Amino acid sequence: MKLVIAVIQDKDSGKLLEMLVDEGFKATKLASTGGFLKAGNTTVLIGVEDHQVDDVVGIIKQTCKSREKMVTTMSPLGGSVESYVPYPVEVIVGGATIFVVDVEKFERV
Amino acid sequence: MKLVIAVIQDKDSGKLLEMLVDEGFKATKLASTGGFLKAGNTTVLIGVEDHQVDDVVGIIKQTCKSREKMVTTMSPLGGSVESYVPYPVEVIVGGATIFVVDVEKFERV
Amino acid sequence: MKLVIAVIQDKDSGKLLEMLVDEGFKATKLASTGGFLKAGNTTVLIGVEDHQVDDVVGIIKQTCKSREKMVTTMSPLGGSVESYVPYPVEVIVGGATIFVVDVEKFERV
Ligand code: NI
Ligand code: NI
Ligand code: NI
Repeated sequence: MKLVIAVIQDKDSGKLLEMLVDEGFKATKLASTGGFLKAGNTTVLIGVEDHQVDDVVGIIKQTCKSREKMVTTMSPLGGSVESYVPYPVEVIVGGATIFVVDVEKFERV
Repeated sequence: MKLVIAVIQDKDSGKLLEMLVDEGFKATKLASTGGFLKAGNTTVLIGVEDHQVDDVVGIIKQTCKSREKMVTTMSPLGGSVESYVPYPVEVIVGGATIFVVDVEKFERV
Repeated sequence: MKLVIAVIQDKDSGKLLEMLVDEGFKATKLASTGGFLKAGNTTVLIGVEDHQVDDVVGIIKQTCKSREKMVTTMSPLGGSVESYVPYPVEVIVGGATIFVVDVEKFERV
């Protein structure tokens, strides 16, 4: 038995938990913040059989992988207050930090 | 040293933490949701000596074991809106998922 | 790879997380309560290389170590309602419980 501890972005947690449940895994979502102090993170605990670790890591990659996304920002372009115009920028969203820990004893009561 | 990670129902956490403290254990309660996405779960961390694992698992069983409970529901009996009547049903409440993990180093500072 | 799980006091978490980030560590803060049921605790997860465990434990000690502090209290001195007067008392603040767990597999995606 292994415990998969995944720190992911809040916005990816719905997709991840839905896919885990679809595949028959049980997950527990902890409220968390951080990774470089950023708000909006979630920690997910998933207890799995040893041979299921790669499946779960695959599901986390599929639903939470860091990727580029175009967003429209209003930040000043040139440092002058007159230059606030909407323009698209590419940002990195998502990403997951995954720890797999051995479970010596597992019980469901 | 072992770390016991128990995911339990919120409603059982008061009883569990009280009994753990009575028996001299220190527990930390994390806010959590889920297990099949259900709200109302709590994750409890308990650091224990190796020989205390069975005691702690026993306390969790005693206070959180899943059990049947009669509740009165107002759900429709036959699918028709006229059929809403209070009636007792047996539901499963409680239950705990327990992971025991080895602790390589433990410090209290 | 190791996972450091530290239960600390809320009031020390700002200093700890700032120093961890300064030293290049990534930390995740979980909302928690307890240790003897007291509110105001925080659980921090820090993933580190094996040789960095002592550094991180040192940072936790430096920022969260339990210490005496003078506070002014208004508790009754003699049990009589007339005896409420402000007076300084020494209390213990801070403190951390640290668990270090082996990580079998670590991935950042
Ligand atoms: Ni195993
Ligand atoms: Ni041990
Ligand atoms: Ni390692």
